Amino acid sequence: MILSALLTSVAINLGLCFLFFTLYSILRKQPGNITVYASRLVAEGKVKEGGEFNLERLLPTAGWVRKAWEPSEEEFLSNSGLDAFVFMRIFIFSLKVFTFGGIIGMFVLLPINYLGSQLKDNSDFQHKSLDIFTIANVNNGSNRLWIHFSAAYVFTGVVCYLLYYEYGYISSKRISCFYSSEPQPHQFTILVRGIPVPRGSTCSDAVEHFFREYHPSTYLSHSVVRRSSKLQNLINDADKLYRRLTHLKSKNYAPQRHKRDGFLGIVGPKVDIVDHYERRLGNIEDNVRIEQSSVAAKEVPAAFVSFKTRFGAAIAVHIQEGVNPTEWITEQAPEPHDVYWPLFTVSFIRRWISKLVVFVACVSLTVLFLIPVAIVQGLTHLDQLETWFPFLKSILRLSVVSQIVTGYLPSLILQMFLSFIPPVMVMLSSLQGYISWSLIQKSACTKVLLFYIWNIFFANALSGSALYRMNIFLEPKEIPRVLAEAVPSQASFFIAYVVTTGWTTIASELFQLTKLAFNFMKRIFRRNGDDFDPPSIPYHSEIPRIRLFALFGVTYFILAPLILPFLLVYFCLGYIIYRNQLLKVYVPKYETGGGYWPTVHNSTILSLVLMHVIAIGIFGLKKLPLASALTVPLPILTLLFNEYCQKRFFPLFKNYPAECLIKKDRADDEHNMPEFYDKLANAYIDPALTPINYSERTDSRTLPLLHGSEA
Amino acid sequence: MILSALLTSVAINLGLCFLFFTLYSILRKQPGNITVYASRLVAEGKVKEGGEFNLERLLPTAGWVRKAWEPSEEEFLSNSGLDAFVFMRIFIFSLKVFTFGGIIGMFVLLPINYLGSQLKDNSDFQHKSLDIFTIANVNNGSNRLWIHFSAAYVFTGVVCYLLYYEYGYISSKRISCFYSSEPQPHQFTILVRGIPVPRGSTCSDAVEHFFREYHPSTYLSHSVVRRSSKLQNLINDADKLYRRLTHLKSKNYAPQRHKRDGFLGIVGPKVDIVDHYERRLGNIEDNVRIEQSSVAAKEVPAAFVSFKTRFGAAIAVHIQEGVNPTEWITEQAPEPHDVYWPLFTVSFIRRWISKLVVFVACVSLTVLFLIPVAIVQGLTHLDQLETWFPFLKSILRLSVVSQIVTGYLPSLILQMFLSFIPPVMVMLSSLQGYISWSLIQKSACTKVLLFYIWNIFFANALSGSALYRMNIFLEPKEIPRVLAEAVPSQASFFIAYVVTTGWTTIASELFQLTKLAFNFMKRIFRRNGDDFDPPSIPYHSEIPRIRLFALFGVTYFILAPLILPFLLVYFCLGYIIYRNQLLKVYVPKYETGGGYWPTVHNSTILSLVLMHVIAIGIFGLKKLPLASALTVPLPILTLLFNEYCQKRFFPLFKNYPAECLIKKDRADDEHNMPEFYDKLANAYIDPALTPINYSERTDSRTLPLLHGSEA
Repeated sequence: MILSALLTSVAINLGLCFLFFTLYSILRKQPGNITVYASRLVAEGKVKEGGEFNLERLLPTAGWVRKAWEPSEEEFLSNSGLDAFVFMRIFIFSLKVFTFGGIIGMFVLLPINYLGSQLKDNSDFQHKSLDIFTIANVNNGSNRLWIHFSAAYVFTGVVCYLLYYEYGYISSKRISCFYSSEPQPHQFTILVRGIPVPRGSTCSDAVEHFFREYHPSTYLSHSVVRRSSKLQNLINDADKLYRRLTHLKSKNYAPQRHKRDGFLGIVGPKVDIVDHYERRLGNIEDNVRIEQSSVAAKEVPAAFVSFKTRFGAAIAVHIQEGVNPTEWITEQAPEPHDVYWPLFTVSFIRRWISKLVVFVACVSLTVLFLIPVAIVQGLTHLDQLETWFPFLKSILRLSVVSQIVTGYLPSLILQMFLSFIPPVMVMLSSLQGYISWSLIQKSACTKVLLFYIWNIFFANALSGSALYRMNIFLEPKEIPRVLAEAVPSQASFFIAYVVTTGWTTIASELFQLTKLAFNFMKRIFRRNGDDFDPPSIPYHSEIPRIRLFALFGVTYFILAPLILPFLLVYFCLGYIIYRNQLLKVYVPKYETGGGYWPTVHNSTILSLVLMHVIAIGIFGLKKLPLASALTVPLPILTLLFNEYCQKRFFPLFKNYPAECLIKKDRADDEHNMPEFYDKLANAYIDPALTPINYSERTDSRTLPLLHGSEA
Repeated sequence: MILSALLTSVAINLGLCFLFFTLYSILRKQPGNITVYASRLVAEGKVKEGGEFNLERLLPTAGWVRKAWEPSEEEFLSNSGLDAFVFMRIFIFSLKVFTFGGIIGMFVLLPINYLGSQLKDNSDFQHKSLDIFTIANVNNGSNRLWIHFSAAYVFTGVVCYLLYYEYGYISSKRISCFYSSEPQPHQFTILVRGIPVPRGSTCSDAVEHFFREYHPSTYLSHSVVRRSSKLQNLINDADKLYRRLTHLKSKNYAPQRHKRDGFLGIVGPKVDIVDHYERRLGNIEDNVRIEQSSVAAKEVPAAFVSFKTRFGAAIAVHIQEGVNPTEWITEQAPEPHDVYWPLFTVSFIRRWISKLVVFVACVSLTVLFLIPVAIVQGLTHLDQLETWFPFLKSILRLSVVSQIVTGYLPSLILQMFLSFIPPVMVMLSSLQGYISWSLIQKSACTKVLLFYIWNIFFANALSGSALYRMNIFLEPKEIPRVLAEAVPSQASFFIAYVVTTGWTTIASELFQLTKLAFNFMKRIFRRNGDDFDPPSIPYHSEIPRIRLFALFGVTYFILAPLILPFLLVYFCLGYIIYRNQLLKVYVPKYETGGGYWPTVHNSTILSLVLMHVIAIGIFGLKKLPLASALTVPLPILTLLFNEYCQKRFFPLFKNYPAECLIKKDRADDEHNMPEFYDKLANAYIDPALTPINYSERTDSRTLPLLHGSEA
């Protein structure tokens, strides 16, 4: 890639971003779009739909930037929760890292690279290849490479210091959030699995007996989990019907009230649709009641056990309960609406096996992903298309069409396949036996991150033939050399990737094109106006993407520092846009207490080590073996630093220490605990088992969010 | 090696063993040897030194075999403790494995190997090479290899079943031993390290305040650790002096009572030696008292904290106490006399660094061990010796001498170097920050085992040039091929190794040559007759040796089944001899509660996987790629089995479950707990800090074992 091409690309993408921002600042003021651009505020009742028309609405303004910027960290934390706060810290941390890296890179490394003469590029400045700004242009064996060497050490040191500071800062926030929280059911409750039920007894009795025996002073109550998937389906049906009914009634939209009863509402006798729905709802309700009474017998050997104190629950979680370690397995319960009910039925050994299967599936998906993509891309060759669709021949021969087809179709296919990855990973994680949605999402986040690193970074760095080159990982000695040969030559690709994909994804995150279109369609066809469900931020697809860009920055820091300014723009835009979205659009549904930070920390360490490995290879290729050898301690020191951080901070992210738990328990006296205990006893009853009575409610318009597990 | 040579070697070593047994059965009856052959019984006062002379004493009898055989498992367990019991289970387990393996090997695999014709050995039976009994003799591509393939699967299945059974059996014994134990201080006590001492306060106050605050209902008492190494040295001096004094007084041996005061007792004025010693003892005692009063101020931020219940202690151990995970680090306390005092002073970060340093030292020692050995062995070449010691020239030229020097000296040097390994590993482990001797020994056990596997198995299998070939471990794909080429060809070496080294070490374990010689010398010179210290079994050198032989058996099971009968003899001898030694010679000093079994389990899994890897390589070399590919699942399944066992049984070896702790706490009501609590409060006071008063005791003959930490 030459310099002028890069500048053109930057100009185009800046233009695109500007266009998105302008459109956003106009569209967000249109009342019809309020559920897209301020869904959280709507859900919280702070903004109402509708409003007067005035001219100011059609003018683009940047007031939203100020509003997103204004709240202090404390306000943002109390407003959006610790997870969102940690998410924003990722941007702040990345900005700090790449500001420092950018200064070193642009003012020290870049001039050195440019002054080299290895590549002998005699074209004028505009047509110079971007490669002359990379380390490839420094002369072999040149002593100037020692500056790159020192930069690697200094940069690693600064990043590690920032990592340490950030880990400490976030863990202190985590503790202080815990101190300031109200008593919450999940703090007092544990999940027990693998309950050995004696013959002739019920699971409920076994739990009651065990905990009364061994935790008499702290045990409060329990609720046994029941096999309720069939019931869940019935209730979902009833739910859907009920929503439709409420909608119909509220609109009182006469022409739609009568419909034919048969296939697709086209054949069959005409019926009053409301009556018809009400009858069907009644039927389902009867079924639900019958099923509910029978499900009580379908006990699963798992139960939520609540304690009187947090410390009591912690004791039961931390000490192996029964003699057989595969029985009475305890873990801290998630928030009640965060529980993932379907997979409670399986036994210890089946959970263990499904974990293995998921692991294998995940690795295969990650490693082999590019094969089907390549095959499908292969099908889009022009001649192939022409043989398949002969009637398109004349169109495909047009040069514009052929350019689009050959140029965009393959990358479109790749993007399409990639967009399936986060949901697929969530699906795989949900099979792993996690007990809550937040844990599933957290595990999917790691999976997606590794997937991206392999299929975007490595696949492109190793020139698309990652699979073919995979065998280098069976010869560990060769890794630095192969990476050092492949990675720097792809610098211009990744710079372009940051400018195109990076900037546009951030801008479209603000603009929410698909949701806007969906909302527009919905308004035209005026269907189910009421089932508005404010979205929560999909951490498992956002964090990996952001960390991937940070990985580019860290690995290319000494190779091609030109990437850094573009990354800085990316993180600046990201900071303000995500702050806006978290304040206005995304609702915090469940809270992991900053549980994503360790993932971010580890991914940063991984990128540092990757940078070191490439540096070792590069110094070797550049005929400076001493620098290569002296770089070897750097990854070792970085890994030791990581090890220390794991010991120093990670325990706080797994569990709260005794000191906090006991202090918090003592502070409970201020609250009305008997009332809370009453609530606690019923908090973990499967939502499918709560009595339903739609028929009596069909007139009211209030529609509570019935099931937390429908996200 | 040819068959007749093997038979000769077997005959010679059987003869040697028989000789050892005969000598043992005579010598053990001599009263002077009683401290060698029945030291435990002497220490327990069950046998007295001295006795009448009679003829029966000079006749070899095998009564000791019957006596060692007689006690049932239960009796043995209650007599020698769980660790000794587990040690004997190693033999029982190995006997089961190799009986099964031996039957398959000798009656199925050996005939098949012998019937092959790959090696074309036409010599008569006596001169046939042992190689024709190995898999090397099976024709390439022969379908008979499928029998070896099936044998690998069946053998692995049986070994895994036995492992599972044994792990379960030993863990149930561990629990039942816990239930039947008396209340012991270490069950109620934890060690706390990294105590943050506020300015202006003492460590003792900080501990008191913290545990009164957060564990008010269970906290009992604490004792802060003090920096006492100087004091310890003084006390050791006093101890030595006191022993000598008591000895002198008891003998009332007038001629020795006067000695010159000066250099080596040769010059200077004559003094009454008893008076002189008493004066010196008095001086040291004064110093000790002064030091003891000053040491009280030298607090180390570590303390033993005792609780009223075992469950209370477990809670404090399992839940992170303070907000900073590097402070208030808790772990279960060892038995009071098992505490390793010297290393309490160091901080969290220094302990962590020293762990890393020890790790690096250990790996380097293991990997590089053979270099100095080879160098020293190189010095023993005849011409080298002749240039160094010209005066020996005429002697070295004698053919007998030269044969001995060149034949035995190198292996003698290797053995000498090897004998330093267990103490060196103990030394390294003690630097790792373990808090008790038993933990140090357990960690050293693993280190020695890995050392042996590398330096005896791999170094010999890869024909002595292990270091040169080490780079195969950087190319994982090549490992099966290289091992499959190297390992089978060394079969005859390892068979000879079992017969020579194996059988003789077992026989000399019974005969205790060095101790016998030492005892003989002592009796001649009649010195310090009283400081008799019964030995405890050095698990860290015995278990690795036994497991090494088991590793030979498992890896050579399909390659050269001829090794199995010799191993069976080894384990049979070992069973009866170690049972005898544990009942009569070794005193159980500290109890890990069967903590060595996981090491044994893991080493068995390691040998199985090693066998599989070699099998994969062998089937490849033998031109049966299908069998090679079908063997690949075997190591994976074995590792999964291991993973399951770790989940199913290992937690029981780390900690006791809540159920056991609480049941045991409730059963305490039968005991006099207030009295026990009083004892508990003083149990963990550094032995160096207990008041001493030798001067008043010098007349009594009773000599208590003062310090548990002197082993």
